[in-house]
Amino acid sequence: MDLYINRDELSRGLARVQSIIERRSTQPVLSHVLLEATADGVQMTATDTEVAYIGHLAAKVEVSGSVAVDAAQLFQVVRSLPEPTLRLQLLPSNQLEIISGRAWFRVPGLPAEDYPTLPPFASRSSIRVVDAELRRLVDQVHFAVATDDTRYGLNGAYLEAREGAEGWSLRMVATDGHRLCAADAKVEGEPVITPQMLVPRKALQVMRKLLSGSGDQVVLDFGEGAIRIVHEDQTFWFRMLDGVFPDYHVVVPKAGGYLVRVRKDEFSSTLKRVSILVQDRVRPVRFAFEDGELEIGIDSRDKGEVRERIAVDYSGTPMKVGFNVRYLQEVVSVLSEEYLQFELSTPLAPCMLRAAGDQGGDDRAFFVVMPMRLD
Amino acid sequence: MDLYINRDELSRGLARVQSIIERRSTQPVLSHVLLEATADGVQMTATDTEVAYIGHLAAKVEVSGSVAVDAAQLFQVVRSLPEPTLRLQLLPSNQLEIISGRAWFRVPGLPAEDYPTLPPFASRSSIRVVDAELRRLVDQVHFAVATDDTRYGLNGAYLEAREGAEGWSLRMVATDGHRLCAADAKVEGEPVITPQMLVPRKALQVMRKLLSGSGDQVVLDFGEGAIRIVHEDQTFWFRMLDGVFPDYHVVVPKAGGYLVRVRKDEFSSTLKRVSILVQDRVRPVRFAFEDGELEIGIDSRDKGEVRERIAVDYSGTPMKVGFNVRYLQEVVSVLSEEYLQFELSTPLAPCMLRAAGDQGGDDRAFFVVMPMRLD
Repeated sequence: MDLYINRDELSRGLARVQSIIERRSTQPVLSHVLLEATADGVQMTATDTEVAYIGHLAAKVEVSGSVAVDAAQLFQVVRSLPEPTLRLQLLPSNQLEIISGRAWFRVPGLPAEDYPTLPPFASRSSIRVVDAELRRLVDQVHFAVATDDTRYGLNGAYLEAREGAEGWSLRMVATDGHRLCAADAKVEGEPVITPQMLVPRKALQVMRKLLSGSGDQVVLDFGEGAIRIVHEDQTFWFRMLDGVFPDYHVVVPKAGGYLVRVRKDEFSSTLKRVSILVQDRVRPVRFAFEDGELEIGIDSRDKGEVRERIAVDYSGTPMKVGFNVRYLQEVVSVLSEEYLQFELSTPLAPCMLRAAGDQGGDDRAFFVVMPMRLD
Repeated sequence: MDLYINRDELSRGLARVQSIIERRSTQPVLSHVLLEATADGVQMTATDTEVAYIGHLAAKVEVSGSVAVDAAQLFQVVRSLPEPTLRLQLLPSNQLEIISGRAWFRVPGLPAEDYPTLPPFASRSSIRVVDAELRRLVDQVHFAVATDDTRYGLNGAYLEAREGAEGWSLRMVATDGHRLCAADAKVEGEPVITPQMLVPRKALQVMRKLLSGSGDQVVLDFGEGAIRIVHEDQTFWFRMLDGVFPDYHVVVPKAGGYLVRVRKDEFSSTLKRVSILVQDRVRPVRFAFEDGELEIGIDSRDKGEVRERIAVDYSGTPMKVGFNVRYLQEVVSVLSEEYLQFELSTPLAPCMLRAAGDQGGDDRAFFVVMPMRLD
């Protein structure tokens, strides 16, 4: 291997793989990134065997070759280099030489043959979705994925194909038993999702790093227990989580509850203040809905009290509901509309939340939060 | 207590005391700040009994009174409030009510009598020093203070009064046995420092927060085992560390070594790159000084190699010296001149470093670094 490559191009590529690399793996090779130089440029592969990333980088390759190098160290070295053009040359014993102006590095590598081979991917259906929309699905549900739950299926985000009058859409759903998040995005093509597909937590985290949020389309390939996302010269692949997601429809409240509309910014700053007095995460906050007004507060002689009233659109029965304020804060943080809409039925029934504009509710995402019992 | 106060004024005051407050003390009252309202405004006191801060805040006080309140919680509450004017009112049982627009808080407090009383301060000498200069002394030496060293005197920064042709100056010195930092600042008045005065680590950290780096003068009062710094409405007080600082002059190299001048920016970016391959902190980096050139590098087949040559002003004997690169990085980070000047004698002798401009060395600070043996 002997090639010239742009420092910033290589640095951007290495930045992308950092979220995939396992630094504390029992297999040292998994902390490495595989570099393969051919006449076409450099192919970069990173994997922890459950998720994988393959990217192509432009390079002027004089001698082809391949080597696996510690990904974190190479990233640190590359981004520190003084000149925009780097020369990478493979020396005997898998030593990689890196030259940039007056700086000369030699880092130890491992033979390319030691790098894990990615399994073949057989696509059963292929759809297209706007990058920013796929990114929105992940952003709007990832925080509700359970952590190390013994109900194994809750540790991932569930994918569902939905057909409507305007064509197919893809729904992503996550729940930890206390709240549920669901978001839909229009897609081109029919998603064939059999059997259940559960996206593991790490794949969601990697998608949040890799999806740029642009208006470009990406290709989503559904394979045998795996999904592949392809955009231009980049491929991201991940295995599905093995587990059974519960029938989430049973906890989604039926339409027909009392509607409450609240201005999101005002609500958000109130939640932030109230949350200061919630030291532990299980202290319920009282939401008292009244005619045209919502009072949010905590009463506790020992730990402090807070009360705040904000104007809302509401004309139903006065009702006091207890919520875990963090769940509401997380919902508010992923909504972009000006208003938030509650759909209430009784104080202890699941409560539906969604974004709302001037024209009513936004049906691209909904959130169900279980109330807490107030003392 | 019943008063009106500006939110940002109170918030800035509370921000200052956060570095003093002990959150994990066995005495709950030490996590509190004492608020005392009189016709003059509000006096705020924070202490861990070793360091203390007293600040005055403007306020419209209608009823005087005092209470101690959890400092971290009060800071969080105050800076989150929606309106610029706050009303603070003391309720029975030391409950403090805080009202700001639609937000209403009530936080539990402790009786003012429970707050530790600060000991009387008898000033033996009083000097004036520019805030930015005192701040520079702390910035240039604090990182060399030892941490939990059994040589107890090394756990603080040593103060020395020096008289020169242009009057008195104050020197601050710190060493951990591997490197030594010393910085001087001109003062007005004679510092009377008997016996030894050692500034503890925490007081240095607090000074870095409280000194604004402005051109204003602050008053430094030397008392019985304590120092007080006064600036306008603020007083910062701390007890000296009990311990004996070694006679540091014996490790300061005599003038007359070989001078090496290196451009600081270039040197700094080289150190940054080289340090990537220093995984543990004890790996020596080789500095090979030659005629007009310095080669900095590490050789290790297993962990990688790096080499970089930079132009220097040097015409002495070629010499290879090993350094802990982190010590040099810390020195470089606190120098503002364009050049750095090494004074070398032999490869294993202490090496003197100081900032240098076009006109030669800067004598306001110097740094001594012990070399490491190269294999």
